[in-house]
Amino acid sequence: MPTLRHLASALTLTLASQVADAANVILIIGDGMDDQQVTIARNYLQGARGQLLLDTMPVRSAVQILTVDDTMDRRPVYVADSANTATSIATGEVSSRGRIGTTAGDDRDAETIVELARAAGLRTGVVTTASVTDATPASFAAHVSNRMCENPDAMVDITYHDIPLGGCEDDLKAAGGPGSIAEQLAVSGLDVLLGGGAKHFDPAVEGGEQSVARAAQLDGFSLVRSREELLGAPADARLLGLFAPSTLPVRLRGEDGREAEAAKPSLLNRLHRYLGDVTLPEPMTCEPNPAFDGTPSLKEMTDVALARLSADNERGFFLMVESASIDKQAHERKPCGSIGELQQLEEALASALDFAASHPDTLVLVTADHSQAAQLVPATSIFAKYNVPIYSPGLVARIITPEGSLMSVNYATNQFSHEEHTGASVPLYGNAVADGRVAPFIRQPDLFTIVRDYLGL
Amino acid sequence: MPTLRHLASALTLTLASQVADAANVILIIGDGMDDQQVTIARNYLQGARGQLLLDTMPVRSAVQILTVDDTMDRRPVYVADSANTATSIATGEVSSRGRIGTTAGDDRDAETIVELARAAGLRTGVVTTASVTDATPASFAAHVSNRMCENPDAMVDITYHDIPLGGCEDDLKAAGGPGSIAEQLAVSGLDVLLGGGAKHFDPAVEGGEQSVARAAQLDGFSLVRSREELLGAPADARLLGLFAPSTLPVRLRGEDGREAEAAKPSLLNRLHRYLGDVTLPEPMTCEPNPAFDGTPSLKEMTDVALARLSADNERGFFLMVESASIDKQAHERKPCGSIGELQQLEEALASALDFAASHPDTLVLVTADHSQAAQLVPATSIFAKYNVPIYSPGLVARIITPEGSLMSVNYATNQFSHEEHTGASVPLYGNAVADGRVAPFIRQPDLFTIVRDYLGL
Ligand SMILES: [Zn+2]
Ligand SMILES: [Zn+2]
Repeated sequence: MPTLRHLASALTLTLASQVADAANVILIIGDGMDDQQVTIARNYLQGARGQLLLDTMPVRSAVQILTVDDTMDRRPVYVADSANTATSIATGEVSSRGRIGTTAGDDRDAETIVELARAAGLRTGVVTTASVTDATPASFAAHVSNRMCENPDAMVDITYHDIPLGGCEDDLKAAGGPGSIAEQLAVSGLDVLLGGGAKHFDPAVEGGEQSVARAAQLDGFSLVRSREELLGAPADARLLGLFAPSTLPVRLRGEDGREAEAAKPSLLNRLHRYLGDVTLPEPMTCEPNPAFDGTPSLKEMTDVALARLSADNERGFFLMVESASIDKQAHERKPCGSIGELQQLEEALASALDFAASHPDTLVLVTADHSQAAQLVPATSIFAKYNVPIYSPGLVARIITPEGSLMSVNYATNQFSHEEHTGASVPLYGNAVADGRVAPFIRQPDLFTIVRDYLGL
Repeated sequence: MPTLRHLASALTLTLASQVADAANVILIIGDGMDDQQVTIARNYLQGARGQLLLDTMPVRSAVQILTVDDTMDRRPVYVADSANTATSIATGEVSSRGRIGTTAGDDRDAETIVELARAAGLRTGVVTTASVTDATPASFAAHVSNRMCENPDAMVDITYHDIPLGGCEDDLKAAGGPGSIAEQLAVSGLDVLLGGGAKHFDPAVEGGEQSVARAAQLDGFSLVRSREELLGAPADARLLGLFAPSTLPVRLRGEDGREAEAAKPSLLNRLHRYLGDVTLPEPMTCEPNPAFDGTPSLKEMTDVALARLSADNERGFFLMVESASIDKQAHERKPCGSIGELQQLEEALASALDFAASHPDTLVLVTADHSQAAQLVPATSIFAKYNVPIYSPGLVARIITPEGSLMSVNYATNQFSHEEHTGASVPLYGNAVADGRVAPFIRQPDLFTIVRDYLGL
């Protein structure tokens, strides 16, 4: 007859193995969220002496981004895009810019952490403020050679204003491939997939009659298209949420929609840079973006995802949550937009940490995929005493912060309609579960290994 | 009669208290060494997949820089200079740009960690590749209201090409002040002070006949003026080393001395940014800077300092080591220069870690004082497929790395002769002794407290 002590011991073992089985990972990606972006957001949201929730995370590391060219030589390329970085994180493979879950040079499909997790019986979720077909979410559950192949109508000879941008001929179903990103997501088996990108689910699937959205429903997804439908969806359904045609509207914008602007040098200053004077862009505040009204917040989407992934789940889950427009707004030189989306990331992180507090075997990691163009520059030049016109050759926003100081944000990586990414290593933050699992310096593909090992895949 | 166990216990206590007494701090500052600079140097010196010695440090944190305006309101200013940041680190006081060891608004002298350490009987040293009178080293052992007051002849109505740059009237000895930075350093009681800045020791001290250099000698310094004199100096002397008139020459430079250059758009492109074409600066390699020949390396100076500070010292020491020209070369848009000076920092760090290996109670910290302008940007635009001219509005260097790829570094914070600093938080690295003493996120003045507490001051 078993003693009470034997019973207790058996119970402990059972609990321990259940806990190990139910290990969860919440990976939060701030697209383009480098230390400039974090500091700009800290200064605006919390004040220079304040701290973000990110700042309270007990584990911190730096992540070197790795990119190669699209040849079998795989020579180093020093600045990434979100396609190859998300591919690094999702698959552990260093790839070339523009690639989604495929390898450089030989175009192999690389197995993703979502596929591994699903095969092992874990639930999986992807949440983003971008199109769900955009580079970061796509890389976790799709494989194409070109990130622009988001739907069945964008697979061959993609053009933009008559400029040819390539295609994914080899990924066509007709060529034995898996089809466009949207088609792959429709049959991905993800338990939760929330974000924008409805327009990519409207076209008919390759070689079929029904829309990609219909294909997703036939594969078991419940489709919701508004915040109300999201919050009211049946609790046990696999959920596809598409809340905007493309990227979701962002929460904050510059006063009256203003973005970074050029300094206006006087005629004399155009003749010689030390003569004349210059008019800098008018200072501005940030304001709520009216277009955001009715859009589910990243936190709301994350809460729905966590509830569904964890309910009656003894096997655990993997959830990727992306705040995409920290990057997108920086490309468009809109610092208020980036600040608001970093605030959205903070709120989603608060949800993740709350969840982890009641589910101790939850690894929470937050990182960026690559660095961005924005620079926090002096509101008053450090050379102001020289009393000559000093101004950025790029575009600058001068923001009045809630604590009443002026914060200048500079965008000057190019003169194109969109700024470049930059190449600096990015921050990585972890909760206490990450302690001992994340070295103070890692390479980006190591993130795949850390998550895979934690989930025992 | 004491038992063996009592003896052992007493011995342990004695050893423990001796060890505590001999606690040492080596604080290494990479001026302007933000994550862009670290990544640029990593890619060049070790390759994209390589790692710096910095990357192997077991403790990592992010440091929020704090600056205020020079009023009693002390309103936040979001981008610092090396004077107020070094003042934060050396004294724990958040100050305003340009101030050396003094407070914003009320111009109080703030006690420095060197002064505290010396008062407690510890040895102290300052080593830099800048003038020893430059902002970072000065802030550890001097107090003036304006960083430009480096010598007795630069205290009142300082001008540069007839441009008035202020002065330090209140710091004149005649006004009851401590005199210029060089004069204060001469009587600082530092055990080791090595770097450049000989020209600031040539003028006569205020109200006296002898030069500042002579005053330093009269106060007990042995003066050395060359690498040979440094390496051959008497082992027990307090050492002042001045190895160049101003900043020490740097180790690396661009091919034929080249720096970042402007892109050259065609005439058509000047008419419309999407027309015509552009000629980017020719790629270049980095090469040894001939002017560096005969200059002591930062590592050599650090080795001399460590030997002198530790010899027959039962009380411990504080040593600050600065690689100053990571920043200065970035101001001048010379990425090769910055890379070489980060390499110098790595070598000095190797010496510090070697020393700590044989002296376990040595806290080694490495940090930057503020972020800088340089950005690692794509060698090929991420929008290259659009097939229009895309280039930086600033100045760019395209560097051929030893691993054979092209690395573009962009400088575009202003159109002045020198780039601005930027405001991002900076990295902090620590050896194992730092574990538990440095949170993953701190504010810059916390560094003062961490060092003071470790040294028991
Ligand atoms: Zn981007
Ligand atoms: Zn500087």
